Amino acid sequence: MDKSDSPINPFFMPLIGSILKYAGSKGYDVLVSLQKQSDNWGSDYGHARRADGIIFLGYNDYDTYTQKVAVLGEMGEPWVLWGPVIPEHPNLVIGSDNEGGAYSAVKHLIGLGRRRIAFLGEPSASHLEYKERFEGYVRALTEVGITPDPELMIDCFISREDGVAAIERLMREGVAFDAVFAVADLLAVGAIQQLLRAGLSVPKDVSVMGFDDLWVCTCTSPMLSTVRQDTTEAAHVLVDALDVLISGQPVELKRIPTQLIIRESCGGSL
Amino acid sequence: MDKSDSPINPFFMPLIGSILKYAGSKGYDVLVSLQKQSDNWGSDYGHARRADGIIFLGYNDYDTYTQKVAVLGEMGEPWVLWGPVIPEHPNLVIGSDNEGGAYSAVKHLIGLGRRRIAFLGEPSASHLEYKERFEGYVRALTEVGITPDPELMIDCFISREDGVAAIERLMREGVAFDAVFAVADLLAVGAIQQLLRAGLSVPKDVSVMGFDDLWVCTCTSPMLSTVRQDTTEAAHVLVDALDVLISGQPVELKRIPTQLIIRESCGGSL
Repeated sequence: MDKSDSPINPFFMPLIGSILKYAGSKGYDVLVSLQKQSDNWGSDYGHARRADGIIFLGYNDYDTYTQKVAVLGEMGEPWVLWGPVIPEHPNLVIGSDNEGGAYSAVKHLIGLGRRRIAFLGEPSASHLEYKERFEGYVRALTEVGITPDPELMIDCFISREDGVAAIERLMREGVAFDAVFAVADLLAVGAIQQLLRAGLSVPKDVSVMGFDDLWVCTCTSPMLSTVRQDTTEAAHVLVDALDVLISGQPVELKRIPTQLIIRESCGGSL
Repeated sequence: MDKSDSPINPFFMPLIGSILKYAGSKGYDVLVSLQKQSDNWGSDYGHARRADGIIFLGYNDYDTYTQKVAVLGEMGEPWVLWGPVIPEHPNLVIGSDNEGGAYSAVKHLIGLGRRRIAFLGEPSASHLEYKERFEGYVRALTEVGITPDPELMIDCFISREDGVAAIERLMREGVAFDAVFAVADLLAVGAIQQLLRAGLSVPKDVSVMGFDDLWVCTCTSPMLSTVRQDTTEAAHVLVDALDVLISGQPVELKRIPTQLIIRESCGGSL
């Protein structure tokens, strides 16, 4: 999904940009370290002690992740994670209101008259943010009396190629659908490409909605409607939280509001 | 051009990703600092001495830039810049073969039968990389006996919005064109959007070619043909060069080859 050899999720790029900018405005430089390259990054970091604190973006598998950060907790290292905010896992997590964001997106699609809304994403314990988005999807549907249809739920990772494959599969299996809600913009981008290739009109035949608000959303034709994760606010909250932790004070789990961004791909602005 | 508040050129994101990954594989963490936020970043950095060396990505205005880095040179700080490689400015610059990349792109468009090829970009002393790409454009045209037409040269910065505006201007002024060569992918993305909006077919009516190979190139419909700057190789060369400088050895200016990437927007793969 990225032409470089970088394993970094594109969503994190504007977030990293915002963190750099905000940290810079407070006089901090930022030490960037790719923890995925070492199996023992938790203790590696702790032993090295080359930075005042650490902000984690991304965790691959949330279950294994929580075991790894336990090491940092024992060493008293200040750290904070961008991810799913779960009261029963009281880690120092700051993240978006994923459930509410997905709910508002699907509710919007329903308001446009869409009833057969495909869900693209993998809602599992390893990807709790996508699970939260799935819960928002289900709530919006059931609230208006639509029973979620398993045929419309396509398990997939978050690349553009997976979005292409998801639409190919729905069409091959003859599943009727009039809208797509994807847990990530790249999935939605692939969905648009494959729908257009199949000769369908977006949004006339099928409305498409993503999640994240990557800058690529304005580069597609039609431009992609999506749920914005507020990377500016997120960067401020993450850096401020680390600041508080470094000074030895406690910080709270926090959910940052999302915002529905209506462009061309869902039909709401036409 | 970016939905966050980040001033970072999208091209640098995969480059930063590659630098992080490669530096990480050598056991280095990377201190990221946004020099644009301080007017005196050159001396600020020197006084702070919080990192072993510095890799500059981007310089805004090359003329003012070279004055600023002179300060670092006087202080003996190890640094290297990604930018235009100019023998008469013997700074420690590593960059792409901009002239050759543009030449190959425009030559490809000519090979497809295109003769009225618009140039989108600002070729000036402040943006020497774009000037080099302009020289490649002119060389490819003149080589086959086409006189470059000033009507087809649109001065613009590198945002998607500027690409939209450039096409609007060409059409408003009634300038005939059958291809677009943009010095940056975002310009090309805007050009595609505006051409489609005007009811034209890309690539049937107008071929479009970008420069950089941002990952957005695969997200547009049609997908964007472009000149790839090799961010993986660039990251290796930049980090290795800094390594050599830190050890007190001299490094050479270096031009990294570019690669023509043919997708759907120019018609070459149809």
